[in-house]
Amino acid sequence: MSKETKIPQATTKRLPLYYRFLQNFANEGKQRVSSQELSEAMKIDSATIRRDFSYFGALGKKGYGYDVQHLLQFFRETLDQDEATNVALIGVGNLGNAFLKYNFQKNHNTRIVVAFDSKAPLEGTEISDIPVFHPDRLEEMYEKYNAELAILTVSARSAQAMADRLAQMNAKGILNFTPIRLNIPETMKLMNIDLSVELQALIYLIRN
Amino acid sequence: MSKETKIPQATTKRLPLYYRFLQNFANEGKQRVSSQELSEAMKIDSATIRRDFSYFGALGKKGYGYDVQHLLQFFRETLDQDEATNVALIGVGNLGNAFLKYNFQKNHNTRIVVAFDSKAPLEGTEISDIPVFHPDRLEEMYEKYNAELAILTVSARSAQAMADRLAQMNAKGILNFTPIRLNIPETMKLMNIDLSVELQALIYLIRN
Repeated sequence: MSKETKIPQATTKRLPLYYRFLQNFANEGKQRVSSQELSEAMKIDSATIRRDFSYFGALGKKGYGYDVQHLLQFFRETLDQDEATNVALIGVGNLGNAFLKYNFQKNHNTRIVVAFDSKAPLEGTEISDIPVFHPDRLEEMYEKYNAELAILTVSARSAQAMADRLAQMNAKGILNFTPIRLNIPETMKLMNIDLSVELQALIYLIRN
Repeated sequence: MSKETKIPQATTKRLPLYYRFLQNFANEGKQRVSSQELSEAMKIDSATIRRDFSYFGALGKKGYGYDVQHLLQFFRETLDQDEATNVALIGVGNLGNAFLKYNFQKNHNTRIVVAFDSKAPLEGTEISDIPVFHPDRLEEMYEKYNAELAILTVSARSAQAMADRLAQMNAKGILNFTPIRLNIPETMKLMNIDLSVELQALIYLIRN
């Protein structure tokens, strides 16, 4: 992929989905797939799929569709599925707890390896087999466990302070579940998921 | 708003955010605000803000900015903030449990009023003061509690069957946290939040 091409965030968010559905097609023994078939399986319109794929160069042939193994290999490399990612979870409240228990079981290469919570003792404890430390040891343990990015599930009032510490440590990214719009350096990547906002947006769609 | 205008989903998802930040500005006593100020507070570029607002007609005046109270009133009506919404939660596993405990405390007009889980007894139980019934009573209790939409946090293998039952009952929308791409009638609204996909998309951004 050309370094010049700016991939829209909406496209970025669909890449893991494409990968998952191509895996399904491959498991079913399919050798090629049309954008129409992908569209029906994924509930994404086929024009969107073709536009998304076009950002990565012409991957399909007209009248033939896409070669499943070729596409799968392409997305595996693009998504670095062969490389493990260690994740730190910051804030073990209700949502954080759900993450620890779930721990992305289906993503074999992505794991929460360490967690932090202000109620945890300095020497650490374990929840669902994952070590949980007091945030006073964030810098030390984030490095020790080779975490690359953090899931932020702390309270709104701690969110920016935690983001500042992560930025100081050159953490690469934050998956932010707090309602705070974080100030972070441009070198850090950020994804915001605000569950209240998603719910309100759905209500808006229903009413309008 | 004209019924002809198709608001992009990305804009829809920002509406509740605009509302929240305008409330902040109003609470600080501000009477007008520029797209630049909104941009800095919300970390959304100001061109996007102006484009979003343009879908709802020209709400600001050049060189003056936007009238805070006027905009706030506009978004309150648009988002139906004065109307209560009853939500059903289907699936009280780890994530569902987190929802029950959190229950959108900041959205005064949106509430989970009833939940369903296959481990709950037929006669019902309570978690965090919310009644939880066995899914055998979904149709009966969804109606009794006047639920308008459902949060779906069941396992992947139950997801489509639950969506089918919700469609049968004319449920208005689903906030889908399962990894399944649901088949639903066009009259129903759907928002998908796949936490693994969000995490993988963030990892992609970090690596590329």
